[in-house]
Amino acid sequence: MNFIEELNHLSVLIDKYLAKYFEQYDDPFENNILESMRYSLFAGGKRIRPVLSLSTAKLLSGSLDDIMPFAAAIEMIHTYSLIHDDLPSMDDDDYRRGKLTNHKVFGEAMAVLAGDCLLNEAYELLMQTALNAGNKMKHALDAAYFIARAAGKSGMISGQVIDMESEDKTVSFETLKQMYRRKTGALLKASVIAPAFYFNVPASIMDALNEYADGIGLAFQIKDDILDVESSTEELGKPVGSDEKNKKTTYVTLFGFNEAKNKLSTAVKKAVDAIMPFGEKAWFLKEMAFYIEKRAY
Amino acid sequence: MNFIEELNHLSVLIDKYLAKYFEQYDDPFENNILESMRYSLFAGGKRIRPVLSLSTAKLLSGSLDDIMPFAAAIEMIHTYSLIHDDLPSMDDDDYRRGKLTNHKVFGEAMAVLAGDCLLNEAYELLMQTALNAGNKMKHALDAAYFIARAAGKSGMISGQVIDMESEDKTVSFETLKQMYRRKTGALLKASVIAPAFYFNVPASIMDALNEYADGIGLAFQIKDDILDVESSTEELGKPVGSDEKNKKTTYVTLFGFNEAKNKLSTAVKKAVDAIMPFGEKAWFLKEMAFYIEKRAY
Repeated sequence: MNFIEELNHLSVLIDKYLAKYFEQYDDPFENNILESMRYSLFAGGKRIRPVLSLSTAKLLSGSLDDIMPFAAAIEMIHTYSLIHDDLPSMDDDDYRRGKLTNHKVFGEAMAVLAGDCLLNEAYELLMQTALNAGNKMKHALDAAYFIARAAGKSGMISGQVIDMESEDKTVSFETLKQMYRRKTGALLKASVIAPAFYFNVPASIMDALNEYADGIGLAFQIKDDILDVESSTEELGKPVGSDEKNKKTTYVTLFGFNEAKNKLSTAVKKAVDAIMPFGEKAWFLKEMAFYIEKRAY
Repeated sequence: MNFIEELNHLSVLIDKYLAKYFEQYDDPFENNILESMRYSLFAGGKRIRPVLSLSTAKLLSGSLDDIMPFAAAIEMIHTYSLIHDDLPSMDDDDYRRGKLTNHKVFGEAMAVLAGDCLLNEAYELLMQTALNAGNKMKHALDAAYFIARAAGKSGMISGQVIDMESEDKTVSFETLKQMYRRKTGALLKASVIAPAFYFNVPASIMDALNEYADGIGLAFQIKDDILDVESSTEELGKPVGSDEKNKKTTYVTLFGFNEAKNKLSTAVKKAVDAIMPFGEKAWFLKEMAFYIEKRAY
């Protein structure tokens, strides 16, 4: 199997798990909130985070079934954050991935609640999973707790706050790094580290996976900064980069286009080097790092 | 100690715990979100839910320290729900308990995030508590999972959805009961049941506490319905009841004022009867049921 085939294969597995997970609910008093949650959960996301979790499970020769609830919970948390980010009071976006955003379809109140409910559902699933994990209960809880911290005040949420507060002004490199590490890096990292906790890996493997996850998290963000410029210069007819319009500080504004590309390559190399010791088993995570570097959208 | 003294004593214990809990954080990148969270958490709430948790711990001769994290997590979840309920897209309230609502002070985007973060923080605290619970890990997780379900799609959130969908129209008694049970009843119930799970009580005690919690949850809501009418008829100068203005279905509109009062007494009696077998130890929970019946606000 090549990279794209495996990527599609794993993301189909996740779609199936999520679809089946929500099929178990049919209380008429819950149908409306569930419809709104499902709308965004199945709005065409690339499933990068849960794919990372499953491929880490494979790297560790662990069962995909064991990791599926963690992968699904992470995707629910990611989806809740997108619904709330798109709200009129936040980024005020009408479309995401070519589809109307949640609040444009279900109204703002329902979008707030659908986001809340996806976050809560992630924790219901994580706790249920830990309760059913038998003698792996503690490891399941370690994994769930790592995810919770990635989603909370020291992760995604303070990242979003820093982002909001950085609008229309130049921020320091340190602030930019903190924002990136929290806003996107933390949950990407949890996607790799949660399985490692669940399978209770030794410290050396944990260290390697931490370094890999930090590398791809940073690469993901620098690539976003580069794409924002590339699409405006290479694809004529499209609007000028939103970062420039919003006077955002990015790797490109701080270091220039070429140096940003260098820093992207360095981050990817760091990630790839970290998982070298795993040999052939790490092929997919390695290709994922290159995929993040080369993606065109 | 009389009831009011004990109520104040327990609520001061909770305030102290929550204050100390948030003192441990001083990352400058998290200060703004924490300030917004703390604003609503210390906005003068009566702490009914965590007080119920602590007094249930006392009833079961359990340690208050053991139950404090669960009580605090429940109060965080309650507070997040108030912040989101007050948002312009939801109830659009400028004041709560005489203080400006979160979004009036910090802006709508920060209010959405402060709510999100309080919900997430509750789960971080619950998971951390379970991880540190030693051989009581499973019982701590049972308690946490019960709280999570009370907060989620089968509890508070679908209750709020039913409430939104019931505006300006008459709903059935069944729908009203479902709405009350979910929107307010579920988390009140979790306040009593979470300690019971943590202390791993036998089925007969669990049944009694379930019946007590159902009784006070229903009483709480019927009393709200009655107060909405009483304040408009007895306290001249105040605006007419908001339920009537919003054409809401309530126990008063469905059954009339006197029959609603009868149903309130029945619910309180059911709650009190359920905990009779505990004898003197149940004095506070018994007084709490009467307090809910008699409160003037």
